[in-house]
Amino acid sequence: MNIKQQSFRTIWPVADGQAVEIQAVEVIDQTCLPHEFRILRITTLQAMIHAIRTMQVRGAPLIGASAAYGMALASLVSAGDEALAAAAEALLASRPTAVNLRWAVQRMLQHLLALPVEERRDAAWQEAAAICDEDVALNKAIAAHGLGLLREIAATRQSAGVLNILTHCNAGWLATVDWGTALAPVYAAHEAGMQVHVWVDETRPRNQGASLTAWELGQHGVPHTVITDNAGGHLMQHGQVDVVIVGADRVTGAGDVCNKIGTYLKALAAHDNQVPFYVAVPSPTIDWQIVDAQRDITIEERDADEVGFMQGRLDNGELARVSLLPEGSAVANPAFDVTPARLVTGIITERGVCRPAQLLALFE
Amino acid sequence: MNIKQQSFRTIWPVADGQAVEIQAVEVIDQTCLPHEFRILRITTLQAMIHAIRTMQVRGAPLIGASAAYGMALASLVSAGDEALAAAAEALLASRPTAVNLRWAVQRMLQHLLALPVEERRDAAWQEAAAICDEDVALNKAIAAHGLGLLREIAATRQSAGVLNILTHCNAGWLATVDWGTALAPVYAAHEAGMQVHVWVDETRPRNQGASLTAWELGQHGVPHTVITDNAGGHLMQHGQVDVVIVGADRVTGAGDVCNKIGTYLKALAAHDNQVPFYVAVPSPTIDWQIVDAQRDITIEERDADEVGFMQGRLDNGELARVSLLPEGSAVANPAFDVTPARLVTGIITERGVCRPAQLLALFE
Repeated sequence: MNIKQQSFRTIWPVADGQAVEIQAVEVIDQTCLPHEFRILRITTLQAMIHAIRTMQVRGAPLIGASAAYGMALASLVSAGDEALAAAAEALLASRPTAVNLRWAVQRMLQHLLALPVEERRDAAWQEAAAICDEDVALNKAIAAHGLGLLREIAATRQSAGVLNILTHCNAGWLATVDWGTALAPVYAAHEAGMQVHVWVDETRPRNQGASLTAWELGQHGVPHTVITDNAGGHLMQHGQVDVVIVGADRVTGAGDVCNKIGTYLKALAAHDNQVPFYVAVPSPTIDWQIVDAQRDITIEERDADEVGFMQGRLDNGELARVSLLPEGSAVANPAFDVTPARLVTGIITERGVCRPAQLLALFE
Repeated sequence: MNIKQQSFRTIWPVADGQAVEIQAVEVIDQTCLPHEFRILRITTLQAMIHAIRTMQVRGAPLIGASAAYGMALASLVSAGDEALAAAAEALLASRPTAVNLRWAVQRMLQHLLALPVEERRDAAWQEAAAICDEDVALNKAIAAHGLGLLREIAATRQSAGVLNILTHCNAGWLATVDWGTALAPVYAAHEAGMQVHVWVDETRPRNQGASLTAWELGQHGVPHTVITDNAGGHLMQHGQVDVVIVGADRVTGAGDVCNKIGTYLKALAAHDNQVPFYVAVPSPTIDWQIVDAQRDITIEERDADEVGFMQGRLDNGELARVSLLPEGSAVANPAFDVTPARLVTGIITERGVCRPAQLLALFE
């Protein structure tokens, strides 16, 4: 998608100045957005793990792509069995919830271990690039299927005019290699000339909506309005939301959706107001192994400072964080919740749109 | 309630240094909390309107008390019919949603206009003080009835140990003259030696939960944990909330609840998880005139800057605000929502606890 009219991906390999060979990865540092657009060069496995853990790169599909390049960076140092296994383990520990991380690391590991050691380095870079290209292809397919869905919703609803889409967190192109998941249909609709407008949930505590979704929609020219996480239910009660589309960190085979904390509340409100609630995911985000989502998905408890502080830009232009809480107040910060399949109207995948219960059939 | 072991109300009349007569009002400036405890002296109607509009005083009952003292301050300048009517009109325009504001202003106006002009000044100060004392008495009655309810919930629930109460926004003593509405039963339970713990919703955009509720609970020694507005549903799914208690800006005779934006989402989650959802209000907050809450209650749309900026304390101790949004992103900021009576387990009033449908019978 576009940043100041120039097309970007969120992650790409680069050769350093001294060699023709690719030896590093560049990413958009998402912790500085929306205030500063910075490109971060990553040259080691450790730096990639740091980038994943501190959310310089984030979003389930982009975490997967980043982990794949993390394996490629590790292979520059040593491509032996033990070194690659250790790299895989370190990457897997960097974020517990995202299923794409595990998927990408296991794919890289299986692929590389099957090759002679001397071929692994080149193969690692090729496989990581393939994972990225496949992500873009998956998201483009989601965009196409989602566009059909949005056209259908626009055609069958009672009101006319702009189609209002509500989204939570950032499942836009910044969460993927390109196009996004939840926002892929929105970009497709915008490109196709449909009048769309996005309600952007702020998404506390890390404000991925206000800082990332609003920024990427703005850069690409898509009309949008930022709201607090508290406001979506009220807007739905007043007919101002035609459809909710969110991404997911993990979807179970039964159609339960593990996504950013607060998603469940929006799904409840959508259900209560007969607003269709869709989840857009590429198949690597589907976890066929989980039986009971509430019981079996580990919900990451993140740092209390995410709730206790807010980063932003001071009047003088500097970035700073301000403390929000009284001294001595405790904080809890669960990062995800699980929306049960019964609240999900449908799931938009690269193979098409289906009801949660039909997911298994779609991928058989 | 206590601040550093000293008992306070949120508003009180004061005589200035030159005269024995009361000529001013002091309030706790709630825009500086939780970082600074400042007392603000208010000497004119205009300053009181400013304090209400900028939320130096806020919370439906405290707005009512403040408006009453606003009328008293106006009477210092002129207590004629026209002057008092103009003062009433100006006060009514300062915050559109709070029904207590209208109730207090009308009570003051009716009371004063019935008296000879020369008696009105003293009567105004007496009547404003009476409104404050009555608010405290109402809240103490709510505390007593709510304590009974909390004991009942603690006795009948399956789990043992600490009773977990979730609240949204600030309906604590800072929202009233003293004791609070939603938190009055919590303070009563704490004083009675019950083990209680409060989940405090941050309550974006103005963070009344994180800055006021957390602060007042901390000052009074009540265990509590701050969470984002997104987290409550997840906690309820995992059995970590025994009861939700919120206040309200307005409750209709049918039991619909107009309260801080986001209340509706918590009510949906409580309903979905069989968590009892209670609203604590003194009778002046009940609006018997409204027929259709969704249609007839004007929802205040507040300044976009409340969403676009966050105030807090910098590392160097200074208070500052940081900008959160990309340039050019639009903002919507509805301040309240309406929770339909069907999602409300009960209403805690000074006359007792009842189901929403029984409200009229309770006050007949």
